[in-house]
Amino acid sequence: MGVVLPFEEKPSDPEASLNDLVALVAGGMDRVNAMILSRTGSEVAMIPEVANHLIASGGKRLRPILTLATAQLCGYAAAEGGRAAESGRDGDVKLAASVEFMHTATLLHDDVVDESDMRRGRVAARIKWGNQASVLVGDFLLGQAFKMMVEVGSLRALDILSSAAAVIAEGEVMQLGAAKNTETTEDEYLAVIRAKTAELFAAACEVGPVLAGRPKSEAAACRSYGMNLGIAFQLVDDALDYGGTSADLGKNVGDDFREGKITLPIVLSFRRGTAEEREFWRRTLERGEIDEARDLDTAIGIMRRHRALEDTIERARHYGAIARDALALFPDAPMKRALLQAVDFCIARAH
Amino acid sequence: MGVVLPFEEKPSDPEASLNDLVALVAGGMDRVNAMILSRTGSEVAMIPEVANHLIASGGKRLRPILTLATAQLCGYAAAEGGRAAESGRDGDVKLAASVEFMHTATLLHDDVVDESDMRRGRVAARIKWGNQASVLVGDFLLGQAFKMMVEVGSLRALDILSSAAAVIAEGEVMQLGAAKNTETTEDEYLAVIRAKTAELFAAACEVGPVLAGRPKSEAAACRSYGMNLGIAFQLVDDALDYGGTSADLGKNVGDDFREGKITLPIVLSFRRGTAEEREFWRRTLERGEIDEARDLDTAIGIMRRHRALEDTIERARHYGAIARDALALFPDAPMKRALLQAVDFCIARAH
Repeated sequence: MGVVLPFEEKPSDPEASLNDLVALVAGGMDRVNAMILSRTGSEVAMIPEVANHLIASGGKRLRPILTLATAQLCGYAAAEGGRAAESGRDGDVKLAASVEFMHTATLLHDDVVDESDMRRGRVAARIKWGNQASVLVGDFLLGQAFKMMVEVGSLRALDILSSAAAVIAEGEVMQLGAAKNTETTEDEYLAVIRAKTAELFAAACEVGPVLAGRPKSEAAACRSYGMNLGIAFQLVDDALDYGGTSADLGKNVGDDFREGKITLPIVLSFRRGTAEEREFWRRTLERGEIDEARDLDTAIGIMRRHRALEDTIERARHYGAIARDALALFPDAPMKRALLQAVDFCIARAH
Repeated sequence: MGVVLPFEEKPSDPEASLNDLVALVAGGMDRVNAMILSRTGSEVAMIPEVANHLIASGGKRLRPILTLATAQLCGYAAAEGGRAAESGRDGDVKLAASVEFMHTATLLHDDVVDESDMRRGRVAARIKWGNQASVLVGDFLLGQAFKMMVEVGSLRALDILSSAAAVIAEGEVMQLGAAKNTETTEDEYLAVIRAKTAELFAAACEVGPVLAGRPKSEAAACRSYGMNLGIAFQLVDDALDYGGTSADLGKNVGDDFREGKITLPIVLSFRRGTAEEREFWRRTLERGEIDEARDLDTAIGIMRRHRALEDTIERARHYGAIARDALALFPDAPMKRALLQAVDFCIARAH
């Protein structure tokens, strides 16, 4: 099934472009992981079980990495004349863990909403423990996320992250409304992914400079970096759903298709398509009449004919470029270079 | 179906005992209601629809009333030499609205978890808009609740309410584990309702004195009042589920029974019962083999035989007495008297 997308500027090893960033925050991420482990603890055994099923299955932890990285970029760690760990300051660690909890809660609730069977290459929690546990453990993680934020004590950071929580939920509801509507416009689709994916990237990046007490211009720059990186990340994800392999993605190729999810490759294919192709999309996505054996291949065929996957990646490149420019006001530094490389990573995943 | 519980000290009109409290916070509640309306607004039309379906259906708004009342008891409104509304201080209003949003979010998620059809005498949101909307609008309301708390700017209040959010979710998961287990002990059951119901009452009452900047002893007293009132409230609810009428309750008599929920009347009946009766509870609650036409009457008959409903109310009276004593350190005042009467109301509902 693995469809290879043609690529214009593909680095030899896309994973490598994240290496510098990962190395620069390695110490902080150890502390974030320890924090995550301790804050999913509960005497109610099902809570750490469900939470760790998802959290331990990994993922790149891109969001908490971004919080640590932007805090470090803005001098948070160095503010007390040494590394944060030594000075006992752990605001960045707690906010990073909060961001990961918010993300995990969203995944748990999404699985219930989407009726997914797989998540990050493992059976979805809702299959193993039921929808009930997924909803409630998600709520628990959200509560723990807010507790950690409160401990940090920055009202500005609390404002950013609680606003993000509301916007994310709003985006998910918006997506419910757009679900199965093949007439969705590109703008409508972008509004959905801005809210449901990019907002958390933006918030994760904005709290870094806020913690470091940096001026608004730097907070706005980091927010813009995160927002545009998040949009690029989601668009690439959308393309991968019609072109990666199950092992890479941690979900099944064609999941979005089977769930009738309208993503950019569909939006572009529908608009560019013939009357017959539009009827195909209406039948499969709106009416859900899918022939498992053939329709996914047909869908990918139509997308290739209209260059819908390539152009989805092209759109992602556009947002990636905005993300890069957003960091222009920061002086050259290893962390800045690593953040710029992370943009390449997000886009180069589509190979 | 309306089973009348014998009562030892029943006031002539139980509703009347809430009148003074309602009158004392009437001005504040108008502002809370306006705040609730404005904060459920969204360009995503489904959000205000779902939220208002539940919020507009009323309920007594006991939790936000308690926040306003304890703030007033502790002099919050009078602190700037006048009423809060005139001084522009609206911390009590925002925290009260937050508490109601947290409660509404819990109800929305509970309906999904419990697969309920009815809520507050109306069709449950999940039936009308689907589980998806219930999960996501719940998340949206939680996000909005935290945003309002952040606006108030009290880290102490944020700590109390975010901790409550985590404890509530933990309690719900605990209840999942206890579900359908007829061997549940009274202590285990109390741990569940402390977390899932009483904690929010406690938090709603604790933030009042915190807002007013009162000493810890008063915050602890109000917290204790709320916690014990909440336990009493839930126990009476449990009894009503086997004895009120659908119109009073906003849910169907026997809902808990049909859902296999283990509540105190069941815990007491099971322990006090014969081998045959225990087998009845195992068949109906654990195995879910319920004959709609006969089993609810049989269940109520067993409960009456063992005085399980009367003793559930008796337990509620015990917690009500603790709630009353918790307020002893406050000087006599109209608000204190009204809060004492509210305890009577919570218990006298069971008639």
